[in-house]
Amino acid sequence: MTRDRLEKVNANCNQSNHYQSDRYQQGLRKLAEIDGRAGEQVIESLKEIAPDLAQYIIEFPFGDIYSRPGLDLKSREIATVAALTAMGNAQPQLKVHIHGALNVGCTRAEIVEIMIQMAVYAGFPAALNGIFAAKEVFTERDI
Amino acid sequence: MTRDRLEKVNANCNQSNHYQSDRYQQGLRKLAEIDGRAGEQVIESLKEIAPDLAQYIIEFPFGDIYSRPGLDLKSREIATVAALTAMGNAQPQLKVHIHGALNVGCTRAEIVEIMIQMAVYAGFPAALNGIFAAKEVFTERDI
Amino acid sequence: MTRDRLEKVNANCNQSNHYQSDRYQQGLRKLAEIDGRAGEQVIESLKEIAPDLAQYIIEFPFGDIYSRPGLDLKSREIATVAALTAMGNAQPQLKVHIHGALNVGCTRAEIVEIMIQMAVYAGFPAALNGIFAAKEVFTERDI
Amino acid sequence: MTRDRLEKVNANCNQSNHYQSDRYQQGLRKLAEIDGRAGEQVIESLKEIAPDLAQYIIEFPFGDIYSRPGLDLKSREIATVAALTAMGNAQPQLKVHIHGALNVGCTRAEIVEIMIQMAVYAGFPAALNGIFAAKEVFTERDI
Amino acid sequence: MTRDRLEKVNANCNQSNHYQSDRYQQGLRKLAEIDGRAGEQVIESLKEIAPDLAQYIIEFPFGDIYSRPGLDLKSREIATVAALTAMGNAQPQLKVHIHGALNVGCTRAEIVEIMIQMAVYAGFPAALNGIFAAKEVFTERDI
Amino acid sequence: MTRDRLEKVNANCNQSNHYQSDRYQQGLRKLAEIDGRAGEQVIESLKEIAPDLAQYIIEFPFGDIYSRPGLDLKSREIATVAALTAMGNAQPQLKVHIHGALNVGCTRAEIVEIMIQMAVYAGFPAALNGIFAAKEVFTERDI
Repeated sequence: MTRDRLEKVNANCNQSNHYQSDRYQQGLRKLAEIDGRAGEQVIESLKEIAPDLAQYIIEFPFGDIYSRPGLDLKSREIATVAALTAMGNAQPQLKVHIHGALNVGCTRAEIVEIMIQMAVYAGFPAALNGIFAAKEVFTERDI
Repeated sequence: MTRDRLEKVNANCNQSNHYQSDRYQQGLRKLAEIDGRAGEQVIESLKEIAPDLAQYIIEFPFGDIYSRPGLDLKSREIATVAALTAMGNAQPQLKVHIHGALNVGCTRAEIVEIMIQMAVYAGFPAALNGIFAAKEVFTERDI
Repeated sequence: MTRDRLEKVNANCNQSNHYQSDRYQQGLRKLAEIDGRAGEQVIESLKEIAPDLAQYIIEFPFGDIYSRPGLDLKSREIATVAALTAMGNAQPQLKVHIHGALNVGCTRAEIVEIMIQMAVYAGFPAALNGIFAAKEVFTERDI
Repeated sequence: MTRDRLEKVNANCNQSNHYQSDRYQQGLRKLAEIDGRAGEQVIESLKEIAPDLAQYIIEFPFGDIYSRPGLDLKSREIATVAALTAMGNAQPQLKVHIHGALNVGCTRAEIVEIMIQMAVYAGFPAALNGIFAAKEVFTERDI
Repeated sequence: MTRDRLEKVNANCNQSNHYQSDRYQQGLRKLAEIDGRAGEQVIESLKEIAPDLAQYIIEFPFGDIYSRPGLDLKSREIATVAALTAMGNAQPQLKVHIHGALNVGCTRAEIVEIMIQMAVYAGFPAALNGIFAAKEVFTERDI
Repeated sequence: MTRDRLEKVNANCNQSNHYQSDRYQQGLRKLAEIDGRAGEQVIESLKEIAPDLAQYIIEFPFGDIYSRPGLDLKSREIATVAALTAMGNAQPQLKVHIHGALNVGCTRAEIVEIMIQMAVYAGFPAALNGIFAAKEVFTERDI
């Protein structure tokens, strides 16, 4: 094997390793950037029972989706907080993403605005339960 | 009654008239700003069967909520498009708000990003049906 | 076999036949009383693909539930119309039950009130889609 | 300015003040009539985090909707209890409205009937969780 | 009465007695087979507040549906665990049916697979909350 | 570089190339195996508007999830058909997966059983709308 061929193999290999590893590594970085300790705890809580689900969460939502360039992180968290508030059946994840929204630049007042707006689309109970989730997060962060 | 007292009465009165009228008038302006003709058509379609619901839609979502200063209109539409995509049971309203999002500054690409992101929180069918609604809107607007 | 024994067999038999038949027969009567032709069409549409589901619908919702004495039929239909409007994912059944509500004494205006009220609990899109379903029913009935 | 003109200004003014104030004042009265202390507690819990949402709840659902003449309060609460039971993602609000339904004339037995009926439209888990919410309310009220 | 006629009456009668009694008795057996003690506790918890709902649960889901021959019990529990995980608003019933799935032959690993798969159709929060419910059940069973 | 070291690099590299390419290629194979032409059409319909979503659908649900060994394909489709029927807001995807279920070994009768069972967990309207979707699929396949 010539040195050229070897280097090409290495390059291909590194590229694909790099790509492969980027999905997970990139996901880990995004998860840390957005969700901080709250995200880590979710991953930790899956370690024994469903480690593959933990891996998918790092790879797909964070490595693939939140790493996409087409929409800024603050807008992404506004979308997620709105969706989880409207769905109303995922309070633990809503709390994680209220933390996330605050971590990437949303203010306390903006979170409250999103909750109030959801009264229009998902009803007042959804808005109220969103506000109560936000209240817990604001208390945890002492803001 | 002194002139002062009278002027105060008038002022209070005008203020409240103004406030009262502002709710509806302000709502009409916001509705036109955000939803344009699509919004008008919804209001029109309610005229005979439930005119009071048309009035409430103008007054509460548009006069009260979308007129609040705490969150910019583009972010508000991101939140609404995300919520309606995630809920998945209000396609006509989702289409109206994809129009609305485009009207207040979202790009076609940003709408698509929101839809893709909803796969994470509400599943791939919700994302797909959101994309299909967006496709219809993009075709209508020839963008 | 003595006549006594025979009569007892007949009695048991009639009792259970009666009870058994009552569930289905009672259900058929309630279905006709509430849903009229719309109900019949649903049952008809199941005949080839899932006749057992048709039987269960007659026996359980109509034979068991709507035949219970504890709540008047009008209140029952108010509950059902409200629930289906709020859920927002069962428009054909919502239309059947708007017919049903009108058949057991609700007025057109009361149906509209229920729809408007659902804006509070399930959001304006749910209320709007409820109103549009009602509009179709009112047109069908020419009221 | 003549006395007539002044009185007219006052009248207009009072009317609009009255109307304006009526929305909030009327809402407060309806809230007290329907939800009693449970309603007050919800409003109280919003005071610091989202006082505007508290105001909207008083003005729109209670001042605008529950104050409408077209449907009696008992029927309105039947609709709300049914909807929240069927949606199944708003247990605190369901409990408030079970209290409300009892406050405006529903009996314990009628509440149970609504829950059982929801098994037909939203499934047995929704009915069960409705019953468990009702059980807590009945225990609180010792009925 | 001829012997023929008598036998026919007896046959009809036994058939319908059998059918009738089978519904409740059959339901009780299925409930015990599938849900074991968890099912009994649900029925027990309804005894005072809504005994008729307890009866319907035994008769309809267990006597009528789970007793049908067309789909094996393991497949039925896979369907139910998937549905309750996707709906995400019935955690107590989801836990009962994770027990049920394990009772009729699902493995711990298969339950985890269903939860992970639901991320695709109902989103990652639904999958996560399904996993957390499973974790509690696995701990209770010490598996 | 020794031959050993080279071979190890190659092996690592191939492994990761293989893994990387497997995700998409494996997904394509699974999609074809399960959904056949219906799946292809979904991917096709995304080509212009959201090709990345098409890629994710191939990679994540089909490449990652349906390719996992822990649950057989027939059980996976039972879970998906049950979930989509219960959610009731994704009829196009439900139809694709009824095709899928039939493609991987479910019978027409088993599909009907799943629909009927969903009446218990998501209500009769969900079951009915599931049956109607199945009816369309059975007609398309002439079974």
